[in-house]
Amino acid sequence: MADTRYVCSVDIGGTKIASAIMEYPADGSRPYPVYSAEIPTNPSEGGEVVYSRIEGAIREALASDPDRKVIGVGVAAAGVVDPKTGSIAYANEIMPGWSGIELGPRLREALGMPVAVVGDVQAHGLGEAHWGVGRDRYSVLCLGIGTGIGGAYVEDGRVMRGFHGAAGHMGHIESTSAQGIPCACGRSGHLESVSSGTSIGRMFEERYGRVDESRPTVGRDVNDLCRQGDERAISVIHEAGFALGASLGSLANILDPEVIVLSGGVIHQGPDWRSETWKTSVAEGYASQALDPLLETPILIGELEGDAPLIGAAEHLLASL
Amino acid sequence: MADTRYVCSVDIGGTKIASAIMEYPADGSRPYPVYSAEIPTNPSEGGEVVYSRIEGAIREALASDPDRKVIGVGVAAAGVVDPKTGSIAYANEIMPGWSGIELGPRLREALGMPVAVVGDVQAHGLGEAHWGVGRDRYSVLCLGIGTGIGGAYVEDGRVMRGFHGAAGHMGHIESTSAQGIPCACGRSGHLESVSSGTSIGRMFEERYGRVDESRPTVGRDVNDLCRQGDERAISVIHEAGFALGASLGSLANILDPEVIVLSGGVIHQGPDWRSETWKTSVAEGYASQALDPLLETPILIGELEGDAPLIGAAEHLLASL
Repeated sequence: MADTRYVCSVDIGGTKIASAIMEYPADGSRPYPVYSAEIPTNPSEGGEVVYSRIEGAIREALASDPDRKVIGVGVAAAGVVDPKTGSIAYANEIMPGWSGIELGPRLREALGMPVAVVGDVQAHGLGEAHWGVGRDRYSVLCLGIGTGIGGAYVEDGRVMRGFHGAAGHMGHIESTSAQGIPCACGRSGHLESVSSGTSIGRMFEERYGRVDESRPTVGRDVNDLCRQGDERAISVIHEAGFALGASLGSLANILDPEVIVLSGGVIHQGPDWRSETWKTSVAEGYASQALDPLLETPILIGELEGDAPLIGAAEHLLASL
Repeated sequence: MADTRYVCSVDIGGTKIASAIMEYPADGSRPYPVYSAEIPTNPSEGGEVVYSRIEGAIREALASDPDRKVIGVGVAAAGVVDPKTGSIAYANEIMPGWSGIELGPRLREALGMPVAVVGDVQAHGLGEAHWGVGRDRYSVLCLGIGTGIGGAYVEDGRVMRGFHGAAGHMGHIESTSAQGIPCACGRSGHLESVSSGTSIGRMFEERYGRVDESRPTVGRDVNDLCRQGDERAISVIHEAGFALGASLGSLANILDPEVIVLSGGVIHQGPDWRSETWKTSVAEGYASQALDPLLETPILIGELEGDAPLIGAAEHLLASL
């Protein structure tokens, strides 16, 4: 039997920085946090301030119980992480000054312990593949559906990172349903523009006006209406689900994963996203595009939710040792 | 210095079965055929007859010079090859009775030597990645554009095969340009329906009638017209190139390869596919979809042509030992 092990995990998003000490029990069962904390990212203060905040959060986590011997730090970071260095190779305007931050090298130097940095969506996929609904599966395609849509492909426990660290932008593939619709990335016609929570709200509003006149319509509003049997909401959710399913079919034709896992806010925060309307739409879209040998590939709902990136970051650190 | 090594390679397509003995020179330079032969597949005679023909072709290759010690047999096969067994898991109606043939196990038993079977398009990608334009690159996305469109993703010398062996069906992803157009696979809206040689001929014919009244228009006809400055042909080729480029952008967003390699009949058999019309269209389509960190990813033309699957099959055998 192995010893109990401890890994420090950090998940850096545009809204918050979550940190944890993950305990890997000696019996080999699923790791869980023995310490956890959350602080706001306040990204507008710039990359350097955010960096200091991260280093501080890690130091606090490490100091939370000096008797625990922590092996190293696994970091799940927003933006594109250079797989060779662990630096932030690219970030969008949501985190100004984040691009170029030498996150891995600086943390390694400052903390004097092993540090491994991976993209946050890639970490999410690693978490579900190692300890979530994808455990014991050879390969897992994981899609995170929230404000935007991201993804990760994990094979044999290892996440595909790409040459620049940019692999897994599954929301940014051509979707017939999104033709001509502008995407947050600056292109158009992408899956994200029709199946993300943001897009579902926007589609409803464009067609039927605001649900609440005082604010923009979001995915959850449409979900609530759908639950009440509102035909307009049902039609929008059907369209978003079908487009998602069709893209999952395209992705299966490219990657042929053993299982497909859906996660993220849209999946977890509204139980009705698991409703028959949505499930049927996704299945119909999938069947419309997936090739015959791939028609039986299971489409599952992730089970780790917000813990997935922290667990995945810890797994990434362990694999890097 | 290593010894000179010999591998028997077979490439099984719907039209012909190519076999070769590949010599791996002792100086580590690129392998080349010291024996090669080609026979028709005649797939309509059924899977069992085709199997006998393959075994016969391999025995002839092995007997061609009994003094050469051949290490094993690498097979590139049409259809979906089960990665666990080397059997044909799935084949379409072009090769009746091919699905279910236990190709790897039977050849291994019959020949008493190592046999490794891989999909033909996957073998093509392996060839270009190991010894073609993708050599010394960390990861290669290879697309074969001919009658249909197939693909392969090779990372660190290893091809992504997928859980069922069906990874790499890059022609069967949603393309905005192909919306509503039926695909050979039975679905619709796929890249193959707008950018393959077959599709280019069909698109021209649908819009402008046959080039030669006595037969269906093929890609090469449109290419010839394009070379003569025919505006109709130029517009069709632009559309096909743009759609291909856009899909390459989607694929880069998913896989983030170091280089993209284009190969296959459409690329190699008409030098004008490398013309400015086509190259510009592909580049425009790519830029319309690829994310910022991926805009500089090189799009190269394969250099091994028909030898690529034979070389890739040999590499696959060597990796399996």
